[in-house]
Amino acid sequence: MSAQPTVSITKIDHIGVAVKNIDNALRFYKDALGLAPHTEEIPTMKLKVAKLDVAGVKIELIEPQAGEESVAKFIANRGEGIHHICFDVPDVREMARHLESKGYKPLFPEPKTGAGGRTVNFLSPKDTNGVLIEISQP
Amino acid sequence: MSAQPTVSITKIDHIGVAVKNIDNALRFYKDALGLAPHTEEIPTMKLKVAKLDVAGVKIELIEPQAGEESVAKFIANRGEGIHHICFDVPDVREMARHLESKGYKPLFPEPKTGAGGRTVNFLSPKDTNGVLIEISQP
Repeated sequence: MSAQPTVSITKIDHIGVAVKNIDNALRFYKDALGLAPHTEEIPTMKLKVAKLDVAGVKIELIEPQAGEESVAKFIANRGEGIHHICFDVPDVREMARHLESKGYKPLFPEPKTGAGGRTVNFLSPKDTNGVLIEISQP
Repeated sequence: MSAQPTVSITKIDHIGVAVKNIDNALRFYKDALGLAPHTEEIPTMKLKVAKLDVAGVKIELIEPQAGEESVAKFIANRGEGIHHICFDVPDVREMARHLESKGYKPLFPEPKTGAGGRTVNFLSPKDTNGVLIEISQP
């Protein structure tokens, strides 16, 4: 018996890009690349997000709103840029347990609600060669 | 008549992740995430690359070799982490001309040969909200 199916990655859901201002950033993604944005507010995370679908994988521009700390700190420290990679998983709690068993402790003891009402957790870039990893369950 | 088909993005080909040592980074991607690496040397770019396919989109771990300057400088300045996003395009020269017409000047006047013998060019992160963009033609 193997637990593999519940702890595998289904696909890359999106690449998160931290920006100061989504409308400014869309000049490139919309006007130059021709991608169509879908904009959304995520009050639970104090973020504004513009999703740009590229053949089933999204670029997510994320703009911190008043009071947001994590993305705002990233921009303050390193400037705008690629912020995280999000993997789709069938079961975010199972995957978090699996990763912890391998020595990669998720950021939150319990998953949070992210964009599109998804259940999400994260791995710290300190543990994963500088890459903030989001795991996300539809 | 529209030139749109030749200047559109087909898909995200890969996400480039700059690492100091691929074998070290694979402990996470291979052992914890269960992804299968395909390793390749790119002498023209002085890089070693490990490609990890995730449902048709790749994570590319890139490790600078002796004499490489660009990725090595990125790691020296910012540490390991997500380095670039690569978009598949049908015609890299056409896309470069299109982007330049929109005010985004490609890094190279002529495309270079990248991993897998692909024809590639780049946009500077200075022009694209901190994101190094690779455009790549199979």
